[in-house]
Parts: sequence; structure tokens; C-alpha cells
Amino acid sequence: MKPLKVGLLGFGTVGSGVWNVLQRNQGEISRRAGREIVITHVAARAADGSLERARAQCGGATVLDDAAKIVRDPEIDIVCELIGGTTVARTLVLEAIAHGKHVVTANKALLANCGTEIFAAAHGKGVAVAFEAAVAGGIPIIKALREGLSANRIEWIAGIINGTSNFILSTMRETGASFAEVLKEAQRLGYAEADPTFDVEGIDAAHKLTIMAAIAFGIPMQFDKAYAEGITKLTREDIRYAEELGYRIKLLGITRRVEGQGIELRVHPTLIPEKRLIANVEGAMNAVLVKGDAVGPTLYYGAGAGSEPTASAVIADLVDVTRMHTADPEHRVPHLAFQPDQLSAIPILPISEVYTSYYLRLRVLDQPGVLADITRILADQVISIEAFLQREATHGEDEVDITILTHLAIEKNVQAALAKIEALTSVRGKGVLIRMEGLL
Amino acid sequence: MKPLKVGLLGFGTVGSGVWNVLQRNQGEISRRAGREIVITHVAARAADGSLERARAQCGGATVLDDAAKIVRDPEIDIVCELIGGTTVARTLVLEAIAHGKHVVTANKALLANCGTEIFAAAHGKGVAVAFEAAVAGGIPIIKALREGLSANRIEWIAGIINGTSNFILSTMRETGASFAEVLKEAQRLGYAEADPTFDVEGIDAAHKLTIMAAIAFGIPMQFDKAYAEGITKLTREDIRYAEELGYRIKLLGITRRVEGQGIELRVHPTLIPEKRLIANVEGAMNAVLVKGDAVGPTLYYGAGAGSEPTASAVIADLVDVTRMHTADPEHRVPHLAFQPDQLSAIPILPISEVYTSYYLRLRVLDQPGVLADITRILADQVISIEAFLQREATHGEDEVDITILTHLAIEKNVQAALAKIEALTSVRGKGVLIRMEGLL
Repeated sequence: MKPLKVGLLGFGTVGSGVWNVLQRNQGEISRRAGREIVITHVAARAADGSLERARAQCGGATVLDDAAKIVRDPEIDIVCELIGGTTVARTLVLEAIAHGKHVVTANKALLANCGTEIFAAAHGKGVAVAFEAAVAGGIPIIKALREGLSANRIEWIAGIINGTSNFILSTMRETGASFAEVLKEAQRLGYAEADPTFDVEGIDAAHKLTIMAAIAFGIPMQFDKAYAEGITKLTREDIRYAEELGYRIKLLGITRRVEGQGIELRVHPTLIPEKRLIANVEGAMNAVLVKGDAVGPTLYYGAGAGSEPTASAVIADLVDVTRMHTADPEHRVPHLAFQPDQLSAIPILPISEVYTSYYLRLRVLDQPGVLADITRILADQVISIEAFLQREATHGEDEVDITILTHLAIEKNVQAALAKIEALTSVRGKGVLIRMEGLL
Repeated sequence: MKPLKVGLLGFGTVGSGVWNVLQRNQGEISRRAGREIVITHVAARAADGSLERARAQCGGATVLDDAAKIVRDPEIDIVCELIGGTTVARTLVLEAIAHGKHVVTANKALLANCGTEIFAAAHGKGVAVAFEAAVAGGIPIIKALREGLSANRIEWIAGIINGTSNFILSTMRETGASFAEVLKEAQRLGYAEADPTFDVEGIDAAHKLTIMAAIAFGIPMQFDKAYAEGITKLTREDIRYAEELGYRIKLLGITRRVEGQGIELRVHPTLIPEKRLIANVEGAMNAVLVKGDAVGPTLYYGAGAGSEPTASAVIADLVDVTRMHTADPEHRVPHLAFQPDQLSAIPILPISEVYTSYYLRLRVLDQPGVLADITRILADQVISIEAFLQREATHGEDEVDITILTHLAIEKNVQAALAKIEALTSVRGKGVLIRMEGLL
């Protein structure tokens, strides 16, 4: 089958991420999509250096500085708009739709402001506009709201949907520094832009919230009615007082259905109980908490920005559109994600071959030399120790509990070592083995 | 358009949840699906009382004790299998497929053991088998893995995917009680079954993990090669020692791609650093952490079992199948989740009409009567106080910071009160107002 041809508009951070991920994971992505997805054209600008970067990076694609040419090219199936803003991007998206092309976009400002116009145009032409990347970067929250939770009457959504603000608030709390100090640091680290207004004044979050509210409640995009208050006036005192009272301050986007009255649509700093999972989302990460009447609360967490996380969402949309156009409806999404003739025969490893870390607890006689015996057995099996804890055992006055945390080791060696340790006369009964994972 | 007709097999906890949610949210669900979804037939058993319950509850549907009749009924479009197990359910699912019906199932044991056979049959007949409810209840994790993260090379998945075990481990840690004691309590509360083997021995989690691994890595179902170790041997000592070392013990299902070697597929108690979000998933809740090469770590959290959370996933599958068969491909999933002619005109509320709680901070002169003035103004605006904190201000020796947390109040009253408070001669400068949300 012919590859699906994509024209990429814009070659900034996200555009170059889309190129890289699509190249790197081409095989895996085709096995899922049922068809190859190829970026045949890239539009970039000379002024910001992206044209030159695209020329250097995008071997095999036609790189040009005229995006308007791409949206009219009859060879192209999908236009991927990664320019941003609501002027040039709007014109190009509408023209791509007029030319019968599907559109994938990461542009939240465009959708929050011009979504109604764009979706109507797409509906008229029978094309799809996909925008998973517009909200919360790589987290598939649009799909969750639009498909995963479709049984529910959504009651409310509360989200940390601006990574810059969350990074600043997390750092202010950790270091006790002021907003101005942390903003400067965030700019130095690349977490905040030179003009941070959209991020720190809540406007970016309000764009994303507008889109989520439309999907959750079935209402048109109404960014003009959103309330947006940023984090610029927050002081370290308030962060500290909030903490003393058991709360964290997060910039939340909140939308809620108030029965018989209307929809709340608001972005502002918010105190939330420190015990909530979402209160513990730190740094530039995003998280969205959705309350449905049937499912209860569900939470979606991940990177809300950045080159490859955003590319992950853009390419998921490309795969969706590809699947839609390739298979018959029943096989649009393969049961096991990969096309049935593309399953892999890679073997399942037995537990003995697993590498992980271990917690070992042994009950031993409280006498000299025991630890030396144990650590020698571990060393013989190439198992190194990360931490060690000794406590009085609850039973037996001359016995103690020894707990050892190991570094990475292969299970069969650990089991062999444990058997030898259990055979020592100074060790009582069976040892306890629990595996450990860092999850990073 | 004619309604889509569903035959429900099994009327236990989940079956009755599906009926209830579909009734309650019929309007909203139809606006999303583009077509009415109606349960026309219900099969239940006299032996366990479900037949009688179905007859009492399912007005309008044909209730019968012969499931085999339903899977052959030419009137029925989708068969919803909620019986469980791998014997009767397998026969019925295969027969439904043979009769050209789509199948929606919540049956993880069936898929983990017989998935290959079932998907091949479905592929041959051109029908869909949807199974979002089979893993992690109401959390749309199948959709996230299969569609949302399709750009990624999945590196690993680690999930708390058995609510019973997580409830027991959470309670053991909180109360210091033994496994046997907490199991008894869990059985009394309905969190554990009379025969808890499948849950506490890790078998249920291994079923779910097998399904996730197949989707993540594009491999066939291989439950027979999964390693499953449960929580029955965990002692309170190990939970306490783990905590002293900075870890929590969770029953995790872990599947990981080991480059050039194979796939790990294992369920066992696992120490994880207490700072990880997933370490703080308590009670019967589920959470799945997925690491993709492009998106990085993403986490999905919610209720992993229960009548309505599971029904949420079952009905989402019904909506998916309905959308697939109703609209042209481009409009399968409407841009804003609801069909474009079904958007709502419900208004957006201005911030002045929002009800929430508030954090108010005021800098006041440290003199008698100030607090009385402030609390009187609040009371006049029907604002009641939940908590109060007084601290020495950082500037001004005769001034103090007063922080007040309010109960629910309407924003316009709070703003009015704040203006009056700021006008008091004993109050210095502007007050700080930050909104508060409990998020429950």
C-alpha cells in the first residue's frame, strides 16, 4: 500500500521532534498504522534558522519556505500544522481543509479562538482535524475525554496544564525563592520563554481548558468567556502559609458543570489538599483530573510540553487518521494495537532471567561474623549492596532482622545466593525476597 | 436512525451497572455516539438470583435465562459478555462472532487465555472485539496504549491493577495489621471475595498484564508464561522496614522490553520509592505507569473495579463500536466528542458566580478588635470560616499576617467582603485572595 504523505508546516521544537520520532520508530509505527507514514514536505522559515535546520535534518523530504504550496499540493494527504498563533496558521489550516486534506495540529490558541470555524469547515469537506497535542502535550487526554469516558456525564475537570507555571510554583515551594527569581532561573533553563506572559498569566492554560470544556460538556469553544488569572502575584509567604495549613498551591484550569446554571471555566492559582495525587505533580509535568458520574475520579499524568512528548501526540493523531483511511472500519484499530500480521515472536523471559534490585530480609543470630558470611555469598554471585538495615526481631531474643537492598542483579544469582545464605547455621528459617523497582 | 441493539450476557455487579449508566446517561451518550444504544435483551441465571433482579430492573428489555439465544438473535448488533470465566463465556463469544456480531467484554481471564483464538475469529468475520473494561476498570488504559501512545516504542509498563491487593496492602501499612486480619476485613467490606485466590495470588493482575503486554509490544497473549506471585506471604515487618528505607510495597504488574533478549512479564510485590506518584495510590484504586521512548513516563489513575467504573469502560466500547458503524470515517469521532448538531447552549458562568472556598491573607495592625471587624464583615456576606492562622509579618513590627480559610461561598460576596475589609483602617494594603478546591 502507498505510504500516507504528510506535509509538515513549521520546523521548531515540535516539528523537529515529529521528524525524529517518526524516523526512529518508523517500523513500529507502520506495524501499528497498517501503512507507512512519510513526511514528504517540510515548510520552515529562513528568518529563525528553521529552514536551514530542516534542510540539514530532513533528508528525503522537500524542504521549502512556502507553506502555502504544501497545503495545495495534491500529493499530500495530511497537513501537520506546527506553526502556532492564530493568523498565518488559521489561513493555512482553512486552506488545507478547503483542499480536502486532513489536518493535525498542536495549536491550542488557534482551536480555542477559531475552533468553531475550523471544525465547521472540516465537517463540510469531510476531513478530520486532530489535535491531541494541543492539550497537555503527550498525555492522551483528548482521546480519554472524547472516547474513553464517553459513558459519563462529566462533572468537572481540574488540570495542571501549564508546565512553566508548575515548574515555577514547585521551585518556589522547594527553595523559598520569589516568583521573579524563579522565573529568571526557568528562563535560563529553557522552561520559560523570554516573554513568559502566555504561560504565567494563565492564558495558555485557558486555551487548553477551553478545548477540554468543549469536549467534556459538548459546548462550542468560548475562550473569550474564560477567566484567567496567573501566578505572577503569588508570594513565598502564601506558599508557606498554605503549606502550614496542609495545602499546595497549583495553577489549575477548572471547568465544572453547575446543575441548572452553567459551566465554570476558570484558570487561577488554587490551594489543594497536599494528600491529593495531583498536589504532588512537580516540575514541568502536567496532570488532568477528570470526574465522571460513572467512573468517579480519573487522573492522567505526563509531560505536557517538549519536543518528543508533543511529537508523541502529533504522531498518534497521524496514526489515527491513517488507520481511519486504510482498514475497513472493523479493523481500524487492531485488537492488539499492531496489525494482526505484524505480531512479534520476541520471547517472554522466565523470572530467573530478570534483572532488578532486591530487598532481602534475613533473621540471623546476633553474633559476630554473620554479616561477613552473608556479604561474601552475595559478592560471589556478583550482587552488590545498596543499603542495609538491622532491627531487633519481634521473636527470639538472640535474633535480629537484617534487611539488605541490592543494586541491579539477575534473579537466578539472587535466588542461588539466598539458598546458600539460608543454609548458614547462623540464619534462621527462610529469607524474604521482594523485588524493587525505581520506576524512572 | 435505528438504535443500535445490545444483548447483555450476565447481570451481576457490572451488568447491572451497564444497565443503570446507560439508562441514566442515555441522552448524553446518544449525543456522543450519534445514535441511540439500547439493551434489548438480557441473559441472567435463576441460580444466583440475577434473573430475578434483571426482571425487576430491566423494564423494556427481554430478560431470559438462555444466553445462547441472544448470541444467535439476528436482531442484535452487539453482544456484551459480562459472565466471566473461560468456559461458557468462550463458547458464547465465539458463537456471537460466528453470527457476525461485535463483542464487548470485560473478561480478562478469557482474553489472556483465549485471546489469540478470539481475535482470529473476529478478524475472519470482520467484527470487533472491544475490551477496555478488561484492564483497570474505568481507566481508559487500553485506548491509551493502543491509540494514544502509538508513536512510541513502549519501554515498560508497571501497574497497580488489582484493587483488592492494593486495598489490603494500603490497610496493612496504615494499621500495622497482618495480611490475614486485613483480608478478613476486606471480605467483610466487599473488597475481597469469599475465595480471594485470583486477587491475592496475583493471577487477576497477571491476566491484565498479559493483555497490556500484548498491546504494548505487539506480541500474542501468553498468560502461560507470566510469572505471578501474590501478597499472601507479606508481613507487617517487611512493610515497616520498607517504609523505614523510604519505600512502599505494592503488588505491581511489570512488563518490560529487554533489548535483544525478550519481554519480562511478571506480577509480584514490589518496593518502590515513596516519592513516586504511583507509590501513593491507596485503597482499591488502580494506576498504570507507561514509559514510552518519546512521551517519557505517563500515568493513568482511577477506579479499577466496581459496578459503575467498569460499566463506564463497557459503554465507552459500545460507543466506539456505534460510532464506527454510524458515521462516515471522517466523522467517526466528532471533533468535540458530541455530534456537531448536538452541541449545548448552556452558558459559561462569570467568575463572580462561582462557588468555591477561599484563602484570604490580610496584613493587619496587631491590636485588639481587628479580627472582630473582619469576621463580622465575612459573616454579613454569609461567608463562614473553616480555619485561621496568624503569623508575624516579615515587614513592619506592629503588623501581623492573618490567613483565613473559608467554607464554600459565592465569589461576588467574597470580593465584596474583601473590599470592605481592605477599607478598614487596621488593615494594611491589599488582601490576598486565592481560591481553594477539595477535588473530591
